[in-house]
Amino acid sequence: MLDLKGQDILDGAQFSREQLEGIMRLAEDFRAQVREKKPLDLMRGLVMASLFFEPSTRTRLSFETAMHRLGGSVIGFASTEGTSVAKGETLVDTIRTVDQYADIIVMRHPQIGSAREAAAVAQAPVINGGDGAGQHPTQALLDLFTIRSECGGLDGRTIVLCGDLKNGRTVHAGVELYKHYACRLIFVAPEALKMPPAITERLRQLGVPVEETADLAEALPRADVLYMTRIQRERFADPAEYERLKDSYILTRAMLERLNPRLTVLHPLPRVNEIATDVDSLPNAAYFRQAQNGVYVRMALLALVAGRL
Amino acid sequence: MLDLKGQDILDGAQFSREQLEGIMRLAEDFRAQVREKKPLDLMRGLVMASLFFEPSTRTRLSFETAMHRLGGSVIGFASTEGTSVAKGETLVDTIRTVDQYADIIVMRHPQIGSAREAAAVAQAPVINGGDGAGQHPTQALLDLFTIRSECGGLDGRTIVLCGDLKNGRTVHAGVELYKHYACRLIFVAPEALKMPPAITERLRQLGVPVEETADLAEALPRADVLYMTRIQRERFADPAEYERLKDSYILTRAMLERLNPRLTVLHPLPRVNEIATDVDSLPNAAYFRQAQNGVYVRMALLALVAGRL
Amino acid sequence: MLDLKGQDILDGAQFSREQLEGIMRLAEDFRAQVREKKPLDLMRGLVMASLFFEPSTRTRLSFETAMHRLGGSVIGFASTEGTSVAKGETLVDTIRTVDQYADIIVMRHPQIGSAREAAAVAQAPVINGGDGAGQHPTQALLDLFTIRSECGGLDGRTIVLCGDLKNGRTVHAGVELYKHYACRLIFVAPEALKMPPAITERLRQLGVPVEETADLAEALPRADVLYMTRIQRERFADPAEYERLKDSYILTRAMLERLNPRLTVLHPLPRVNEIATDVDSLPNAAYFRQAQNGVYVRMALLALVAGRL
Repeated sequence: MLDLKGQDILDGAQFSREQLEGIMRLAEDFRAQVREKKPLDLMRGLVMASLFFEPSTRTRLSFETAMHRLGGSVIGFASTEGTSVAKGETLVDTIRTVDQYADIIVMRHPQIGSAREAAAVAQAPVINGGDGAGQHPTQALLDLFTIRSECGGLDGRTIVLCGDLKNGRTVHAGVELYKHYACRLIFVAPEALKMPPAITERLRQLGVPVEETADLAEALPRADVLYMTRIQRERFADPAEYERLKDSYILTRAMLERLNPRLTVLHPLPRVNEIATDVDSLPNAAYFRQAQNGVYVRMALLALVAGRL
Repeated sequence: MLDLKGQDILDGAQFSREQLEGIMRLAEDFRAQVREKKPLDLMRGLVMASLFFEPSTRTRLSFETAMHRLGGSVIGFASTEGTSVAKGETLVDTIRTVDQYADIIVMRHPQIGSAREAAAVAQAPVINGGDGAGQHPTQALLDLFTIRSECGGLDGRTIVLCGDLKNGRTVHAGVELYKHYACRLIFVAPEALKMPPAITERLRQLGVPVEETADLAEALPRADVLYMTRIQRERFADPAEYERLKDSYILTRAMLERLNPRLTVLHPLPRVNEIATDVDSLPNAAYFRQAQNGVYVRMALLALVAGRL
Repeated sequence: MLDLKGQDILDGAQFSREQLEGIMRLAEDFRAQVREKKPLDLMRGLVMASLFFEPSTRTRLSFETAMHRLGGSVIGFASTEGTSVAKGETLVDTIRTVDQYADIIVMRHPQIGSAREAAAVAQAPVINGGDGAGQHPTQALLDLFTIRSECGGLDGRTIVLCGDLKNGRTVHAGVELYKHYACRLIFVAPEALKMPPAITERLRQLGVPVEETADLAEALPRADVLYMTRIQRERFADPAEYERLKDSYILTRAMLERLNPRLTVLHPLPRVNEIATDVDSLPNAAYFRQAQNGVYVRMALLALVAGRL
């Protein structure tokens, strides 16, 4: 039986395959219960602190929905404006204080390592909702859940990760989970935004089949899943290089229909223009379902770390 | 039996008189139950998204109170700062995402038509909490409820609408409801801020008796209800014209006592100076009760569109 | 039996010793129940408005936690941005409106007397969460609770209040409570930031033994409790004077171990540098427990003024 009571969720790499499967099954249960609009009382009387030192709609609203759906309460802030952080309080003092109020702390912070720093001083379990360019483990878990749910599992699947693989914390967190499964990975990125070689190397040493290419169209026909991410203009020193590359990574309905009509398409959202809106109505455009899955996965994590199962 | 399950509330004009009366009766029931401080469980387990793309204290707090009083939960934002809207996400993508989390979406947005645009993509019912200079149907419903409650009904009553009738979404939404009743309307506005002729014309074709004047003092003695609104300085090209007009539309206790001591006074609030504070303590100054009624009317709408009755 | 139903909490001076003891005992009960993670239903169906016209993390989150722990709901704002206050609504109109929605109003406002002004127009009980340089009664109550809890009572104890005693609303509110107990007070402040002579004089007339000094090291050996506050640079006309003084009021672990290892250390937080972080891990560094006590004391006040006991 999966027991995460009192544990921090900091990093995709902390989970075994067995733990991942336990979280996935629990999230499936919660999905079924929410779809029946069944009020849950598991977290009644408990308080989750939602500390967003950096803007986020999706992660924040999804965690808050998860806590409410479990019957719990939420305190917190959506930005540091109007908080004692703005008055110069250290992260550690803010966390130590909120730790006096809440049973669980969910946080997003612009600085790598901040969630780990918080976890070191808090008695309440800390869930990392994104620490700068560091980790974002709950996003990785909901991505895993979505692939599992859309494709019936990861074993034997080919997953294309496309976009800014150098800086994207979402894909870095993701591969830490995918490595537990018998899936093949294709990394599609322009040379300047390739997956860090250390990560690619480590995956290969673990026996994960990894290919690399800059050509999305070439990769798509062999894929079961496309995980699309945003290419961020500000990463490019040379604007002409940005202009040249960004267009190869705009997924359109025509491309999909021509190259792989059954491809499952994911995106952590928000998107800018890397997936054309004409893709949205395809049955295998799964990115809004993926957002919904975030609620179920976070319900599972909250209930697990609170020991309320 | 009134059934609005799953329906969007976008526009005052969408309701029949029968539906209006059903909403009013339900709001009366909720008023009685809230006044007894009776905890309600109708919406337990449900989540309302409160999306305020534009500032509002009253509408937001009133909707959130309504949801809490029904035993439900609330997620959302009070401004777009710190949301993915600020990161350039489209309205449609934001709505589609929040639709994955919430059972009901309440929104205010500066752009006319935005609520309808949201309703077109959301599966959850969308309630328009004000779309720029467009509609504000829940305000109109609470105004109707207040007149009904203060005067025992609208039939046979004379209602003065005063102030900026050209731009005021509150009065535009209101007349779409009043037209179902055998009441007389007097529009009091300076020439430059008159009710749009198309609206006045349509009301007359429907058989609603409508008078127009610029002189508030002349209209007051014949009225049962005065619906006061703010005249906004920025609408005037000529500041001298504004200076000349604004003073005729400051309601004072002395005016009321001289012209019509039993007049019921409404205002959507916030007011600036168009109702002197010495009016507040009169028994027929109903604008704070009107704010309270907003909770009961919104409780009725939330419970109806959620199908929880 | 302590009855505060419907009463406003505006000022530390409003309480008798008997009332203080009643609040303390109730807060102890709530502490025991929260520590058992026992869900409470006392405030189910009730709504607390949390109106922060001025930033605060601690007071706001602590009040909101308290209301949630009691099973109640919360509406409000964390800053006036995006509210009708920003549109020029008066405080009185905002309060009158929120009074239509909520069963209890908690407010922080930059202006002295604002909470009293609000209480005069609201039917709901108003709890002052800090009115500028005025009062902060719930902070004083939680400080009292902490001293009682850490030292087993106030009678016979010596309490050092250190820092900016001239401007600190926390210490001004505190002495209004300490005066009911047989404790000795030592005020430690630089000449320019001394406790206002009117307060010191009044305490002496009430028979409270009060000493004054500028030398913290001299006062510490005789103390049971040190209540540390921040010295604010902006209060000093002469920066050199600030530089000279601030260092005498930095409490370090070495100072404590040398002068009084058993001293209980309190601080209202946030701190800047007036308590070195090496003090934090000492068993008698009580300032984070003090923050936690704020939840229990506020639970007691909320339940009392709501008449839900």
